[in-house]
Amino acid sequence: MAGPLVTPERPLVLGIDPGLRVCGWGVVLGGAKPSFVAGGVIRPRQRDTLPQRLLSLHDEMTRIVAEHGPSELAIEDPFIGALAPASALAIGQARAVALLVAAQAGIEAALYAPAAVKAAVSGYGASDKRQVQSMVRLLLGLDADPEPADAADALAVALCHLGQRRTRAMAAASR
Amino acid sequence: MAGPLVTPERPLVLGIDPGLRVCGWGVVLGGAKPSFVAGGVIRPRQRDTLPQRLLSLHDEMTRIVAEHGPSELAIEDPFIGALAPASALAIGQARAVALLVAAQAGIEAALYAPAAVKAAVSGYGASDKRQVQSMVRLLLGLDADPEPADAADALAVALCHLGQRRTRAMAAASR
Repeated sequence: MAGPLVTPERPLVLGIDPGLRVCGWGVVLGGAKPSFVAGGVIRPRQRDTLPQRLLSLHDEMTRIVAEHGPSELAIEDPFIGALAPASALAIGQARAVALLVAAQAGIEAALYAPAAVKAAVSGYGASDKRQVQSMVRLLLGLDADPEPADAADALAVALCHLGQRRTRAMAAASR
Repeated sequence: MAGPLVTPERPLVLGIDPGLRVCGWGVVLGGAKPSFVAGGVIRPRQRDTLPQRLLSLHDEMTRIVAEHGPSELAIEDPFIGALAPASALAIGQARAVALLVAAQAGIEAALYAPAAVKAAVSGYGASDKRQVQSMVRLLLGLDADPEPADAADALAVALCHLGQRRTRAMAAASR
């Protein structure tokens, strides 16, 4: 694998927007100016059984981790208080698969609330999906909005993680 | 692995009572009189990170499946309507790991509501944990109540599955 040069200052972050119907993913290389590496969505077949859908999610995520070799994982964490229990159960299952893949690869995973992700790419937490796509395009210097929206969301999670990381590093340096 | 002779009439069922703190498991061999094969609990270390706990749950379940070679899996499914979203999320994650392990091993998994499990071992759905332990002891002809209670719950899930299986087979035969 001839990928980008990853250092502590230039982490390769895999962002994940977990879901059992559509799961967005995006890889961003950190640094002075973060850059786009790859992105897409995983769509488990809805006619498959639940175990089969979890397995295809697991195998696809494992393949993406093996192909891109991220140094860190960032996962969007639903605000469960706002969810119906059935939705919390469904998202919990997709999130569990992402966390398991991270642990199996020995990569640290961080969880971010949707509001934090939106704030990271737009400055405030109420952006709609279209705004998130446009902001991700601008922040990563892309020619077009990343499609589909779930892939853009996953890239936003990776950008959120890079922002939080930078804030932590600056706080540590100022001590 | 020199295990019991497993046939369509004598399935080897792994029952699981999923949890991120304590996860019960129990293996029962079906037949005219179901018999106890093995049982216990998995306790992910609470000081570990969530990804680590999911990984240890996954690895322990995979080891149990490899050791006992069950032909079918039966998993207790929480009645999510009765749960807080945070609890639904936690149980959903443990359940997802169990379903994933089943899919990875190519074994079918069935889900059962707690009331169905309790009804299967006690005739009505309101038994407490102690009663479930005693009924599992009687149904499997054990010398003592299975301990801890979570292992007994998992054996009850396996017995529930065997009961439902028998009902389905009888219904099919009468057609």
